[in-house]
Amino acid sequence: MLLNETAEQIRSMEIRGAGRIARAAAAALKDHAETFEGSDIRSFRHFMGEAACTLLATRPTAVSLPNAVRFVMKAMEGAGNVPEAQAAIRRAADSFLLSSKHAIEWIGEIGARHISDGDVVLTHCNSEAALACILTAHRQGKDLEVFATEVRPRNQGILTIRALNDAGVKTNYIVDSAVRSFINDVDLVVTGADAVTVNGAVVNKIGTSQIALAAHEARTTMLVAAETYKFAPRSILGERIEIEERQTDEVLDPAVAATLPHVRVRNPAFDVTPARYVDEIVTEMGAIPPTMAYIIIRDHLGWGIEEFHKNFEFNERMQE
Amino acid sequence: MLLNETAEQIRSMEIRGAGRIARAAAAALKDHAETFEGSDIRSFRHFMGEAACTLLATRPTAVSLPNAVRFVMKAMEGAGNVPEAQAAIRRAADSFLLSSKHAIEWIGEIGARHISDGDVVLTHCNSEAALACILTAHRQGKDLEVFATEVRPRNQGILTIRALNDAGVKTNYIVDSAVRSFINDVDLVVTGADAVTVNGAVVNKIGTSQIALAAHEARTTMLVAAETYKFAPRSILGERIEIEERQTDEVLDPAVAATLPHVRVRNPAFDVTPARYVDEIVTEMGAIPPTMAYIIIRDHLGWGIEEFHKNFEFNERMQE
Amino acid sequence: MLLNETAEQIRSMEIRGAGRIARAAAAALKDHAETFEGSDIRSFRHFMGEAACTLLATRPTAVSLPNAVRFVMKAMEGAGNVPEAQAAIRRAADSFLLSSKHAIEWIGEIGARHISDGDVVLTHCNSEAALACILTAHRQGKDLEVFATEVRPRNQGILTIRALNDAGVKTNYIVDSAVRSFINDVDLVVTGADAVTVNGAVVNKIGTSQIALAAHEARTTMLVAAETYKFAPRSILGERIEIEERQTDEVLDPAVAATLPHVRVRNPAFDVTPARYVDEIVTEMGAIPPTMAYIIIRDHLGWGIEEFHKNFEFNERMQE
Amino acid sequence: MLLNETAEQIRSMEIRGAGRIARAAAAALKDHAETFEGSDIRSFRHFMGEAACTLLATRPTAVSLPNAVRFVMKAMEGAGNVPEAQAAIRRAADSFLLSSKHAIEWIGEIGARHISDGDVVLTHCNSEAALACILTAHRQGKDLEVFATEVRPRNQGILTIRALNDAGVKTNYIVDSAVRSFINDVDLVVTGADAVTVNGAVVNKIGTSQIALAAHEARTTMLVAAETYKFAPRSILGERIEIEERQTDEVLDPAVAATLPHVRVRNPAFDVTPARYVDEIVTEMGAIPPTMAYIIIRDHLGWGIEEFHKNFEFNERMQE
Amino acid sequence: MLLNETAEQIRSMEIRGAGRIARAAAAALKDHAETFEGSDIRSFRHFMGEAACTLLATRPTAVSLPNAVRFVMKAMEGAGNVPEAQAAIRRAADSFLLSSKHAIEWIGEIGARHISDGDVVLTHCNSEAALACILTAHRQGKDLEVFATEVRPRNQGILTIRALNDAGVKTNYIVDSAVRSFINDVDLVVTGADAVTVNGAVVNKIGTSQIALAAHEARTTMLVAAETYKFAPRSILGERIEIEERQTDEVLDPAVAATLPHVRVRNPAFDVTPARYVDEIVTEMGAIPPTMAYIIIRDHLGWGIEEFHKNFEFNERMQE
Amino acid sequence: MLLNETAEQIRSMEIRGAGRIARAAAAALKDHAETFEGSDIRSFRHFMGEAACTLLATRPTAVSLPNAVRFVMKAMEGAGNVPEAQAAIRRAADSFLLSSKHAIEWIGEIGARHISDGDVVLTHCNSEAALACILTAHRQGKDLEVFATEVRPRNQGILTIRALNDAGVKTNYIVDSAVRSFINDVDLVVTGADAVTVNGAVVNKIGTSQIALAAHEARTTMLVAAETYKFAPRSILGERIEIEERQTDEVLDPAVAATLPHVRVRNPAFDVTPARYVDEIVTEMGAIPPTMAYIIIRDHLGWGIEEFHKNFEFNERMQE
Repeated sequence: MLLNETAEQIRSMEIRGAGRIARAAAAALKDHAETFEGSDIRSFRHFMGEAACTLLATRPTAVSLPNAVRFVMKAMEGAGNVPEAQAAIRRAADSFLLSSKHAIEWIGEIGARHISDGDVVLTHCNSEAALACILTAHRQGKDLEVFATEVRPRNQGILTIRALNDAGVKTNYIVDSAVRSFINDVDLVVTGADAVTVNGAVVNKIGTSQIALAAHEARTTMLVAAETYKFAPRSILGERIEIEERQTDEVLDPAVAATLPHVRVRNPAFDVTPARYVDEIVTEMGAIPPTMAYIIIRDHLGWGIEEFHKNFEFNERMQE
Repeated sequence: MLLNETAEQIRSMEIRGAGRIARAAAAALKDHAETFEGSDIRSFRHFMGEAACTLLATRPTAVSLPNAVRFVMKAMEGAGNVPEAQAAIRRAADSFLLSSKHAIEWIGEIGARHISDGDVVLTHCNSEAALACILTAHRQGKDLEVFATEVRPRNQGILTIRALNDAGVKTNYIVDSAVRSFINDVDLVVTGADAVTVNGAVVNKIGTSQIALAAHEARTTMLVAAETYKFAPRSILGERIEIEERQTDEVLDPAVAATLPHVRVRNPAFDVTPARYVDEIVTEMGAIPPTMAYIIIRDHLGWGIEEFHKNFEFNERMQE
Repeated sequence: MLLNETAEQIRSMEIRGAGRIARAAAAALKDHAETFEGSDIRSFRHFMGEAACTLLATRPTAVSLPNAVRFVMKAMEGAGNVPEAQAAIRRAADSFLLSSKHAIEWIGEIGARHISDGDVVLTHCNSEAALACILTAHRQGKDLEVFATEVRPRNQGILTIRALNDAGVKTNYIVDSAVRSFINDVDLVVTGADAVTVNGAVVNKIGTSQIALAAHEARTTMLVAAETYKFAPRSILGERIEIEERQTDEVLDPAVAATLPHVRVRNPAFDVTPARYVDEIVTEMGAIPPTMAYIIIRDHLGWGIEEFHKNFEFNERMQE
Repeated sequence: MLLNETAEQIRSMEIRGAGRIARAAAAALKDHAETFEGSDIRSFRHFMGEAACTLLATRPTAVSLPNAVRFVMKAMEGAGNVPEAQAAIRRAADSFLLSSKHAIEWIGEIGARHISDGDVVLTHCNSEAALACILTAHRQGKDLEVFATEVRPRNQGILTIRALNDAGVKTNYIVDSAVRSFINDVDLVVTGADAVTVNGAVVNKIGTSQIALAAHEARTTMLVAAETYKFAPRSILGERIEIEERQTDEVLDPAVAATLPHVRVRNPAFDVTPARYVDEIVTEMGAIPPTMAYIIIRDHLGWGIEEFHKNFEFNERMQE
Repeated sequence: MLLNETAEQIRSMEIRGAGRIARAAAAALKDHAETFEGSDIRSFRHFMGEAACTLLATRPTAVSLPNAVRFVMKAMEGAGNVPEAQAAIRRAADSFLLSSKHAIEWIGEIGARHISDGDVVLTHCNSEAALACILTAHRQGKDLEVFATEVRPRNQGILTIRALNDAGVKTNYIVDSAVRSFINDVDLVVTGADAVTVNGAVVNKIGTSQIALAAHEARTTMLVAAETYKFAPRSILGERIEIEERQTDEVLDPAVAATLPHVRVRNPAFDVTPARYVDEIVTEMGAIPPTMAYIIIRDHLGWGIEEFHKNFEFNERMQE
Repeated sequence: MLLNETAEQIRSMEIRGAGRIARAAAAALKDHAETFEGSDIRSFRHFMGEAACTLLATRPTAVSLPNAVRFVMKAMEGAGNVPEAQAAIRRAADSFLLSSKHAIEWIGEIGARHISDGDVVLTHCNSEAALACILTAHRQGKDLEVFATEVRPRNQGILTIRALNDAGVKTNYIVDSAVRSFINDVDLVVTGADAVTVNGAVVNKIGTSQIALAAHEARTTMLVAAETYKFAPRSILGERIEIEERQTDEVLDPAVAATLPHVRVRNPAFDVTPARYVDEIVTEMGAIPPTMAYIIIRDHLGWGIEEFHKNFEFNERMQE
């Protein structure tokens, strides 16, 4: 597929979901590199740089997209000529595609090792990665019981309990407010993440931080399952993750709302769980303490802090 | 009204609500005392004792009913003859009725003193007493902003925001899971109570304890507004407040539930907030620290611990 | 001295200090009672009631004044005739005077029992009661070392270290900010109180709550030494202790301030330490857990909650 | 038995154990009162006062002894003549004996209500009162599992597991250091108390406070079972409970110790658990929050704070 | 010594102790490499790979063994021919042997810098590394006092106090339960570690986590002294450290146990201290915050997370 | 300028301030390298090594000086001949100078991203880096309000409020003791640092740790702004940051002190804030969680732990 087509599909949300966007971008860069016909390495770098910009511009706030682009683009840094650079990009893109495709599976295997026979596990929202941990442990023959929350306002809990039910896992379904009432009976909380910042804070579905707080109060282990492309590199430069407020009719029937002029619905989609309430983050690259997020961003994703300066800040100043 | 009629109306739930049940019982005892025609004080005590038993048997788990009955019955203890006893009962019943009727109003006035101009207040569920605090402060001209929760699964938050809207109070409506996201902007949490135990623990609508925990984490003041007849005297003897689990279709559509054989809905109606997360309980008898619940039970409601022994335990043993 | 003269001296601040004001009021009521010449008990009650109002009006926000007035006035409640009432007032006033005069001494003796040989004690501000605990222990031959803070902005620490120095107590003098640096070497913190509220919160010199927090973090015991007439009865009805903001030139030289139009000095004189950071309050009536403040207010000072209703609220409503 | 004989048996430790000492003293006072032959009430008071002093002098640091003596002696306060005073003493002594004798049984019944079917309970040391709670729940047919600690250095845990084993209770036996490893599986901790101070601190077998801390960290409920005569009245006046250090050979073989001149054994028999780690104290007079210890001391045991002043302090000063 | 002989001695526990096992394995690999006679680098890698497997199979759960093997084997990765590879292995093995042999000494020097003149230090169990810190500080002339615990059930505390006594260090010997009673007088806790996981949790002798909790409550610094070969690399992949339960007769005399059919002894040898209660881990490579364990595992021991995938997971999948 | 001149100016404090010292040293090394005239790389290394020692000896306890020297000296490690080595030193020195010169500006830009429109920010002392964050946010048009403390004993707060006033920032000026009274209205605390240790502890102006504690209690974010040359590399080897005690007359007028023989002034200039109370450290290399200090020291400043051994410890032993 042509790079412009991929870009268009990402922009129009034909391609969506953190993982799918990231994989489409990596594949597009790989294909695009093959179409280059010259032999001047500087021209090739420019050619690829423009492609990267095109992709990045499609969804400026996505976290996985710049991670994928950076992972692939960084590979050609050391290359001395075009064929070398093309090969490097091919290898990096393939590695990213393989790792991304298997990430959930590997997270499931690593996470399942934290779940013991007889454990009671609580999960929130409908995270593929968190479910992988639970379902892998279940498939390993461990006897589990799960508590799953309703997840207002969009009730993604229904999807979660259906998945658990279909796998034959004994599941309890509770309203979000009931977590503290049951947490003393829970051995392990496992949730997913929408983003992880440089200091290990976890951005996830609204309600996650209250659950983490209740787990902390009861000395219950809290695990977050997250693919590394969810780690937010720009948080190194102080960029805050923007917490989206979704439309108000998810919470309040517009007909009712119309009769309540003094009432305003506030509907943040996510909240922020501080690193100190998270015991470990399980990634496809291994389980890490949350504050090691910086190392994932720098060493695995390739966004070293000096790098930032080189690209964004240093050059500017050198030109002054 | 005849005592038996009142008893029947309480039993059939024609009369319901903690306050109304308590007042009906007090009034019934007062009227019943007037119907006594003999002059033997022992007979009178027996006559009233049977009436008390009849009333108590109608709703054995209600908290306000035994409080009302005890308050009235205790009054005749010192009486030397029937007219004195009748007068004492009359006075006690009138005092209880007056105090109970005005309780919400007085709580509102005391609670409003904790709310300053410009404050942001968060409330949960639809508590008449908590709303009285907020609305009284609003009527005093204080500029307030309120956060009100949805209160799954029965969405009593709608009633709350309607009441606040109709009074012209600027109100924000949020899902239960969003409390921790906004609590740093909140100056004061005010909730009601379904019961208060002897060690100051507050039994209230599911979700209250998570809010109290989040308020504690952010050093936000937590106030509970509760009429004294909500204090649970038998908790002195170790009796636990039974946390009712309500029907599951409040949480999950039965049609969906039928397709999920491995899923069980857990639907506790209340949770328990420990005293250490509550700054003060505002009663119609004044604001108290939560652990002073024992004193309210003993000195205001008249359920001294020795009393319990005399009635329930001591006598038994003396007969051995 | 005539009651009006005493009232005038309190109003003009000729008589000041919580203890002195309280004692002057008690003495004035006692003398005033003797001047009554009729024999009608109702007239006497009215006569004394007016005197009480005159005194209370002199300093409406003082805490010790209403406590003294109430203590004396409550004594005549049961009296059947004027001489009985006069005698009751005499006895109550004498008792109050004696107890108030010896309060610091008794507090010193009780507090000193919490100090062991070899202890390191930290104090803040210049509290007569707190110093009494330390100096009594020193006089008992216990080997002590004291840390005393500077107490910005009025530097009352100078008075404290002078008193300790003159008694020959080994003393360290530190800035307020240095408390956390030394608290791990401290065995006991002792401070005074300007007021204690119904839920055991301690209102005291600005900085006290930070010290209490640092002591709590280091598991260091925190004692508050306070005469019972410092307990704030109206806090039962939700009245907040108004935190006075003092003149800004205590903090910033007016000449400098004049050059800084965007700068505003905030100078609260007191802060509020929550009961959970205070291990015990030492009063002349004994050492109590802070939440027992309500019992001191009700049983020792005579301000039962029902009493409040009778005087302030109930009557109003009965007249409606 | 003659009062002097009882006194001698207490002094020689022929009579020992908090409960037995208290009952012996109450019985001795009752018998002693009957031996008085005059009719002068002042002489009788003096006669009894000397007897009380004789008893109190036998074990000056015991907590239950002054509680028993006070309970009985206080009864004659209102008596107008000798027969009335004798009768009052008789009634008070009988009441104390009955209540003391049944205290463990009543505590067992109240405490058992805190234990639910299926609960895991942890206990420390060999407390008759704590075991009564567990064994009563077991006899009620509740399915329990118990963790019992070894209790170094005297290994009282052996007595505990033997008692539990003989009752057929499923029991786990662990070293003291292993509590935190298992506390997440525990629903309830129940221990006894050697003394309870006025601010609700619990003095109990060394190790109790570490268990309470671990329970608090894991949000596990902590219950203390204590007869009211264990409450330490003199702690109101600041008296500290002396923590006894027992002989060193309990911990280290003297033969080994002799080879280690630089090593000193420290062997405190008890530690102090702060009130904030204790959810409730179960007494024979009901379950109370720990800070309500003052009320037990004042209202049940009769040691009001003013009383102290009257007896110990006030008089002294009046004579100055 | 032949590699097979070393393997046999490790298997038979003739060689034991984390340090000795690691050094024996490194030396065996070095000697083994010298015995290779071909010149084909692929054959050499295979030859060494088989040796590594042989060694690893001797004690599959030891932590130091794979660390030693990995350290040596990783060295030959970049080698282009057999002599280069042999030389690389020789250098790596020598470096490991030197560093391992001196590790305790270096830890002692680094740890001693955390101990100031006049400090009171508490230690638990009999850790060579922790003792090195204390004894080095003592040898530097710092005036110290040590608290050492008994360490039930195997009483290793005796070894510790003997070592301290022999060095002339003033030592206090206490039962494990007494730590919280003395921790306020302690400036520093130093313990060893049996293993450190990727998120900085410390696996050590049962009781360590209770001590760490008590230290945290009192704001007392907690240091862990651990050689880097104790860091558990497989914890990156979610592998839990298995907590061994030792034989029950260490805790309860079998003769007694036989009479107690309802009693089961639970005897875990270790517990897990979370990273948040540990201020620093002192290794021979420097002092680090506990969460930096991942970096030690990756950069010093050579177990990068990608490495794991390459060896264990990636290859598998590539072959699918 | 000749190296010896620079050294003298640093020694005499003609050149002072962490940044200026560091830059002078880097520039001096660069200039010194150019003066070398031979072609033997070993001689050159020796020549530069002596220069480095000269500089380091001028201020042995400064933190920024060894960081600058190390940064420049490490650059020549890989060089094969003198011109290469000179060029490497030139590049490293220029990079250090540029980065150091712009550090405050970059920190300001990164820190400003943590400040939102409408925020209330509290700062302590007079930190150029912290002020840069606030002033940059202000220049970006964000509406801010600042609380600034007095900073006893040297009142650097005056400098801070003057800088804020001159920039037109709405500022509140408070005594150090008043922080806890206002912290609930604060969104963000920003302070500077004098040093950051390997485990993320922040050494800063006395009072900082109390503010961090109060912020933590109120769930208020705490940011530290610090140039990377403030990170203390030797803390890896256990070296403690010496907390300077300044002259006593800063706190107490010597004339007064002379009259107080039992009083000793303690005047520590700094305190230590543990990493767990700091949300992020903003450096010119990006925002990091505090425990990532080790990575800054190793990877950015070039002080790897193995390096230490090589230089300081390893060689010593190899020579034994």
